[in-house]
Amino acid sequence: MGKRIAVAVGMAALAISSAAGADDATLLKQARGLFQPIPSDVSAGGTPGNKDLVHLGRLLFFEPRITVDGTVSCATCHQPSLYGTDALATSIGVKQRVHPRNAHTVLNAALSFVNHWRGDRESVEDQATQALTAPISSGHDERAVVDRLEHIPGYAPLFKAAFPNDANPITAKTIGAAIGAFERTLLTPSAFDAYLAGNVNALSATARAGLEKFINTGCVACHRGVGLGGDMYRKFGVLEDYWTVTGSRSVDKGRADVTKDPADLYVFRVAGLRNVAMTPPYFHDGSVAALPDAVKIMARVQLGVSLNDADTNEIVAFLTSLPGELPVEFANAPALPPGAVVGSK
Amino acid sequence: MGKRIAVAVGMAALAISSAAGADDATLLKQARGLFQPIPSDVSAGGTPGNKDLVHLGRLLFFEPRITVDGTVSCATCHQPSLYGTDALATSIGVKQRVHPRNAHTVLNAALSFVNHWRGDRESVEDQATQALTAPISSGHDERAVVDRLEHIPGYAPLFKAAFPNDANPITAKTIGAAIGAFERTLLTPSAFDAYLAGNVNALSATARAGLEKFINTGCVACHRGVGLGGDMYRKFGVLEDYWTVTGSRSVDKGRADVTKDPADLYVFRVAGLRNVAMTPPYFHDGSVAALPDAVKIMARVQLGVSLNDADTNEIVAFLTSLPGELPVEFANAPALPPGAVVGSK
Repeated sequence: MGKRIAVAVGMAALAISSAAGADDATLLKQARGLFQPIPSDVSAGGTPGNKDLVHLGRLLFFEPRITVDGTVSCATCHQPSLYGTDALATSIGVKQRVHPRNAHTVLNAALSFVNHWRGDRESVEDQATQALTAPISSGHDERAVVDRLEHIPGYAPLFKAAFPNDANPITAKTIGAAIGAFERTLLTPSAFDAYLAGNVNALSATARAGLEKFINTGCVACHRGVGLGGDMYRKFGVLEDYWTVTGSRSVDKGRADVTKDPADLYVFRVAGLRNVAMTPPYFHDGSVAALPDAVKIMARVQLGVSLNDADTNEIVAFLTSLPGELPVEFANAPALPPGAVVGSK
Repeated sequence: MGKRIAVAVGMAALAISSAAGADDATLLKQARGLFQPIPSDVSAGGTPGNKDLVHLGRLLFFEPRITVDGTVSCATCHQPSLYGTDALATSIGVKQRVHPRNAHTVLNAALSFVNHWRGDRESVEDQATQALTAPISSGHDERAVVDRLEHIPGYAPLFKAAFPNDANPITAKTIGAAIGAFERTLLTPSAFDAYLAGNVNALSATARAGLEKFINTGCVACHRGVGLGGDMYRKFGVLEDYWTVTGSRSVDKGRADVTKDPADLYVFRVAGLRNVAMTPPYFHDGSVAALPDAVKIMARVQLGVSLNDADTNEIVAFLTSLPGELPVEFANAPALPPGAVVGSK
């Protein structure tokens, strides 16, 4: 379904639902028009990552020895314990370097049409490849990353198995491909998917009331689809400048800094909400710590709606029903091939 | 068994074994006189940590939000993927502060008679409690740590369950007690324990040959007991100054800096070797990256023995047979109660 058509369907559902207190069947029908369950496979190009590739990517995701001071891995800013985030407003990388924006979760990141807040990472593979040699997250160039991995004897056979046709399989591109293939397995189906499949009682009555408020308030204009977001760009602060409400310390021009197009001023990728209750703080700069506050701010600056506490709490109850279980291969850290960080004496 | 008696038994076994090529039964008998299998329970004071206490400790072990910049948890220097270490010569804590010594693994740390290289941590509980407010590992005082935890609503009921008789259960002492109770579960029984139980073929012929060399060379004078070390202090560099062989960048006076006793100059807690093959680099300063080099250096400076490559490789084969599986509750990161790091905006 094209984006424009999906929006049109969403708007139609919005109109239908404007009478308060839809019955269960009506609400489910509306929801099914707006959201989709998480698919079982979101492999790149429709080709499931082979087992060796995903396994290698899993090891590399947890591998800190490739970064300049040997302390930062993907799992540093995307910790399993914190649902693939770091709970910081903005992350801290190697040598105490501060990231400019909040680390969004890797869970379901492969569902997003682009990655990073400004959409300047095309895919999870692109994100991983760029992070591998970025000054904040790594501090190393490709040669140094590869050199570190070549000094850990256990990796050579793993790369050979994952990339059997490559004569020199350890490169930034293969590392990014492997990590991306692993990230594509990090999906969190939940009670909400059971609900969409027709099990109305998979969500509590309060969560269903919250779902109805979430639809009727207009949140679904952007937070819809399989990820409840993550499939379009939108300006943050349609009716008011966002920073006047979030208390942000600085003003981020958003996608305009990437495209140099004034039309993209304060435009960001819409965040997916699948695990939002587990991933505070909120927004591109992590400026808001509590989920009810974030909900009220969004309603106000995006939709011009002043939500009262009762309505906010219902929406929060809905959002709290969305997180799934941590994927086993994510929560469960693999034992890495042994080897000291070279040159750290 | 007292320490002196254990040493006497070890020395007796050493004398018996001096004829090369002991048969399997003789070698097993020797080994049983020198080593013990990992017990199923090493709870503090013989009282198993209750389930709520261990569960809370597990969460707190993975909790980075209590340290000053919100980035460092116990699992930072003691990563599951790296067998409870960080693969660095010496660890890096908050705000890029460098630890003076190598982080030894938390696996089987509760088996050790004291903790840290200089023995200045009485127990795993003492280590955790002190780390909680130390400048390098935390950068916070007790009040700030407690404040961070109190801002994460999910923790209050967990502390109440673990410490039902405490009116104000969130303190440095209770946090240390909980983390310690969790660490006491981090035991790694392995093929070597099956061997000690009588299954001779649990170790390969090469590993058994290495065990015999390990005994006959005299390594067992210090690396013996349940942890193959971790139950005494010894001077590092009995026959030669250690730093002339390790290439250490600086000279560490060891326990003498703690006790102010010249007899403790260059004295360290003997490292346990249970997972040594998985935890490079080696020694108190991580100055040696490769296990064969570490074995040769120890033989030379402690025992005056020049090991050839073949003997070294056999000993390494024995040491490589020692690691156990990562404990499930250690490898498997728990989902932490959600909450942003306060004041990190």
